[in-house]
Amino acid sequence: MTVATESIATRRRDEVLASRLRDLLCGPGTGFLMEAHSGLSARIVAETGFRGIWASGLSISASLGVRDANEASWTQTLEVVEFMTDSTDLPVLLDGDTGYGNFNSVRRLVRKLCQRNVAGVCLEDKIFPKTNSFIGDGQELADPEEFAGKIKAAKDSQLNDAFCVVARVEALIAGRGLTEALKRAEKYHAAGADAILIHSKKSDAAEILQFAEYWQDRAPLVIVPTMYYTVPTERFIEAKIAAIIWANHNLRASVASMRRICEAIHRDQSLKDIENDLPRVKEIFDLVEQDELTQAEHRYLPQGNAVNSAGALQ
Amino acid sequence: MTVATESIATRRRDEVLASRLRDLLCGPGTGFLMEAHSGLSARIVAETGFRGIWASGLSISASLGVRDANEASWTQTLEVVEFMTDSTDLPVLLDGDTGYGNFNSVRRLVRKLCQRNVAGVCLEDKIFPKTNSFIGDGQELADPEEFAGKIKAAKDSQLNDAFCVVARVEALIAGRGLTEALKRAEKYHAAGADAILIHSKKSDAAEILQFAEYWQDRAPLVIVPTMYYTVPTERFIEAKIAAIIWANHNLRASVASMRRICEAIHRDQSLKDIENDLPRVKEIFDLVEQDELTQAEHRYLPQGNAVNSAGALQ
Amino acid sequence: MTVATESIATRRRDEVLASRLRDLLCGPGTGFLMEAHSGLSARIVAETGFRGIWASGLSISASLGVRDANEASWTQTLEVVEFMTDSTDLPVLLDGDTGYGNFNSVRRLVRKLCQRNVAGVCLEDKIFPKTNSFIGDGQELADPEEFAGKIKAAKDSQLNDAFCVVARVEALIAGRGLTEALKRAEKYHAAGADAILIHSKKSDAAEILQFAEYWQDRAPLVIVPTMYYTVPTERFIEAKIAAIIWANHNLRASVASMRRICEAIHRDQSLKDIENDLPRVKEIFDLVEQDELTQAEHRYLPQGNAVNSAGALQ
Amino acid sequence: MTVATESIATRRRDEVLASRLRDLLCGPGTGFLMEAHSGLSARIVAETGFRGIWASGLSISASLGVRDANEASWTQTLEVVEFMTDSTDLPVLLDGDTGYGNFNSVRRLVRKLCQRNVAGVCLEDKIFPKTNSFIGDGQELADPEEFAGKIKAAKDSQLNDAFCVVARVEALIAGRGLTEALKRAEKYHAAGADAILIHSKKSDAAEILQFAEYWQDRAPLVIVPTMYYTVPTERFIEAKIAAIIWANHNLRASVASMRRICEAIHRDQSLKDIENDLPRVKEIFDLVEQDELTQAEHRYLPQGNAVNSAGALQ
Repeated sequence: MTVATESIATRRRDEVLASRLRDLLCGPGTGFLMEAHSGLSARIVAETGFRGIWASGLSISASLGVRDANEASWTQTLEVVEFMTDSTDLPVLLDGDTGYGNFNSVRRLVRKLCQRNVAGVCLEDKIFPKTNSFIGDGQELADPEEFAGKIKAAKDSQLNDAFCVVARVEALIAGRGLTEALKRAEKYHAAGADAILIHSKKSDAAEILQFAEYWQDRAPLVIVPTMYYTVPTERFIEAKIAAIIWANHNLRASVASMRRICEAIHRDQSLKDIENDLPRVKEIFDLVEQDELTQAEHRYLPQGNAVNSAGALQ
Repeated sequence: MTVATESIATRRRDEVLASRLRDLLCGPGTGFLMEAHSGLSARIVAETGFRGIWASGLSISASLGVRDANEASWTQTLEVVEFMTDSTDLPVLLDGDTGYGNFNSVRRLVRKLCQRNVAGVCLEDKIFPKTNSFIGDGQELADPEEFAGKIKAAKDSQLNDAFCVVARVEALIAGRGLTEALKRAEKYHAAGADAILIHSKKSDAAEILQFAEYWQDRAPLVIVPTMYYTVPTERFIEAKIAAIIWANHNLRASVASMRRICEAIHRDQSLKDIENDLPRVKEIFDLVEQDELTQAEHRYLPQGNAVNSAGALQ
Repeated sequence: MTVATESIATRRRDEVLASRLRDLLCGPGTGFLMEAHSGLSARIVAETGFRGIWASGLSISASLGVRDANEASWTQTLEVVEFMTDSTDLPVLLDGDTGYGNFNSVRRLVRKLCQRNVAGVCLEDKIFPKTNSFIGDGQELADPEEFAGKIKAAKDSQLNDAFCVVARVEALIAGRGLTEALKRAEKYHAAGADAILIHSKKSDAAEILQFAEYWQDRAPLVIVPTMYYTVPTERFIEAKIAAIIWANHNLRASVASMRRICEAIHRDQSLKDIENDLPRVKEIFDLVEQDELTQAEHRYLPQGNAVNSAGALQ
Repeated sequence: MTVATESIATRRRDEVLASRLRDLLCGPGTGFLMEAHSGLSARIVAETGFRGIWASGLSISASLGVRDANEASWTQTLEVVEFMTDSTDLPVLLDGDTGYGNFNSVRRLVRKLCQRNVAGVCLEDKIFPKTNSFIGDGQELADPEEFAGKIKAAKDSQLNDAFCVVARVEALIAGRGLTEALKRAEKYHAAGADAILIHSKKSDAAEILQFAEYWQDRAPLVIVPTMYYTVPTERFIEAKIAAIIWANHNLRASVASMRRICEAIHRDQSLKDIENDLPRVKEIFDLVEQDELTQAEHRYLPQGNAVNSAGALQ
């Protein structure tokens, strides 16, 4: 909560961050949102130079140790994203699943997200509790009228003008075809959605590109190429995709590395050979801005007391 | 909350897990505790084959994006460890810092930990809010009488007989010397501590080994060789150290890998070259036991409804 | 968490409390459950001599300032009941609405309730998010098969043998008639429900008593005479009703009294005339067992420190 | 979160509410703050016509069933006040005890309070965890330098210009005399405190009025006449007291009434004789603005679905 609160005017932080997301979605060219699932991963996304964060439902759930099936409550998820927005000046787009209930759940959610400086929410037209899009076939979709009501409720509840509501169309995931997908996208856009996330689990991008062609840029399109990752990004830029989400790769990277380090330490019963492959403890302190606290001690503690943490770790 | 609740009798889960930690600390030989900071990392520690988990205060804080200075509230920390104990059958020893207040704070903490199936807590003789041991010199220590009262309060509050209270002696960290360290350890042990964690930030283990020699195994000794990682583990085994904590290496490994993947994706604007280095999404589902949920759908949903997630992701 | 943890063996507290609720529901005669909505109101129910507590969804919601429509998340509700079970040795039956989602939501809920020493949960066969039974007509009911799956999931998830799952039948509320109500009750009982709560919003008890007659005591029956309060309790005792819930009267009493005191103080701009009508501050201290803390200070604080609170308020 | 979000411009809600508290404290005449401890009691204070709310630490603790000794964590308290600010357009002044730790704890607290639309915080110069001012004698006070650092940290952390930091001087409570009280008040005011709360547990107001006389209105004075309730309010108005806090009377009123209703129902085993003394269930619905939800259903649900709650309870 430090760099964040120093580096931009904090008093309209919700609006500033939402505007940044809006620029990314509605501005020229194709933007990129990188997944984060915690305050720490959000800080890493920020230091890398990305312009926005995707607070992935799958990643947040998995990080907590639970399934992407709304096993964590919506306020537990809210607490995770609050740690994220406290950790960075990047705009966070929350993967809000189905909105955790009905239109009224969405209203509360959106107000709470704005209070926590979240820049936008993505809502998907499935049934609560949700099932991850990559599991099973023929997932049940929400009634499009009812879902449009959620989008409208979300827009009516935002506490600043820039907050973004992205409607995620799951018709292709559910095998319901392009026409259904377009019809739903149109309805959600008419209900006020600021952008459409069109999702697919095919390993090629044919249906995504077709959708984009028919859609004709009526509203910004967002895509998630987790399964069609081999398709060159240029194709999406040409198709005028507004934003691409790298959806779960920080989580997956951390799984890989924790497995490796656990195996090595368990095998060696020693840190000797792995220590040099890891960031030093000091780098962890830097990531969470320990220095800011040390300086604050000088500002706020009586002389003599602040000496405690005067000597920084080498 | 699945493997966990299936594989051991859940009805006395707090006691079973505490007994496992007790065996690790008090049994023959030297045990190892691997750091985790989330449900996910706890699952990884468990699958690797470790026998116990160190719920590191530094790692949990950093993972949330905050500093190791009690910036997260004690109930926020409690929620993190609850996700951890729900995710694994390994005993969890919580790094409970100073106990988050006075003896009364410790009493509430210990009861809540037992309810959440945490196996033990480590309390350190410093001042709330804490400062990380590796920051600064001459950190202020708690009055030893007052801290002994905390240990006694913790022991009187545990809800099962096996729960472990580890007293962490910070006298060497604070530069107060061996005699002070031994005097404090003795007092805390007399107050009921089940084990003593003797901490040092030297790069060699001389003061740790000296302490062990004088201590003469009056109670199990626990150490944290983060700074003296080059010392061969055999030395500690010979010194009859009861348990060694690998204190923050999962966190540091995840930082390294998230930085790498962020940089690669940011640079390439594509997943193509990194996808094959990462665990597949299916592996994430496996880690959080998606299969158990699919099976449960067959058991609890009317026929026809469960079909949704019947087809697993390849 | 004090009287509670002193007066009964805390180590199997969940089981002891669940057994007490089971005795109340399944034992001879008609038992009474009094509503509470907070740790404080739970303490008052206990000191009065009641044998059990109804943690009302309406009352808990209203106390938080929100509507009985699942506006608070399920973990926020869980936190409220945890403060309640920490405050008393009476068994608490949680009004768990629809279970806050599907069968899987119910599984997590029940495990968490057992960990928090809640004695039982009542689930109703409506749709999430719920609507209060006294609002509107023709409320949509859950598919009975799907709801039976929730009951089965709840029973399979309890962490002690005594935990009680009460199935609340809303068919009469929804105007679906006696036959539908009985059919549903039968199905839920077959799925494992320990008792049936049959609800009605009529101002007489005809349909309730008819239901009881047809039901023939196949499982304990629970009723909530909020709307048919004029019917003498003897009628229900004769009809072998297992338990009667006084569902929201503590909340309503507190609303009445807070309105009165607010009006008086606002009008008088003085406490002079109202002070003697109120319990003294000392009585509030007594309710939350301040004495236990004072004694604990003597036990756990070094001599000299405990002196602070030695002199009790007159 | 309904009337609240409709009736004032929600987009700068934190600032608008803080300004209202500032007007009350700094404007002409003597203002009154009425205690609330929950969303519900906040709604009742608002409907009565008060201009501000005192979120009492004692009342919030007791309502949760715990002691006024920081047994609830600071984030649990934060959640309570969030339900309060969501329930009303009155400014809320939080009784923030000692700030729940050191200057850094205060910084996080103040930021979180502003995000939750809390209008101000009162910090007292005692030691964490706190002891209620009416318990014992000779309570230990904070080092005044250290406490002044907290005040400064609070002011530097507020997210809008109007947020109020009130410094509570406990010197009279601790028996340290008028000179000490004045010296501390001066120091805290110099550190940035917007107002001084001077507390006393005497049954007359002599020391309070003396303090006010010496203070000479250098900054607004706030008092809490719980113990000297017989002193006519005119005396305080003449002494130019800025604000008077009626500190715990809603809580105490609710205790009295819940005890009465519990005793009556327990004795009668019937609601017959008490029903007419209580507000009807419909009044509870009104308090939490059920109508707003019914109207929203018409706005956001497809036709046909909203019918559920169309028929309001008579």
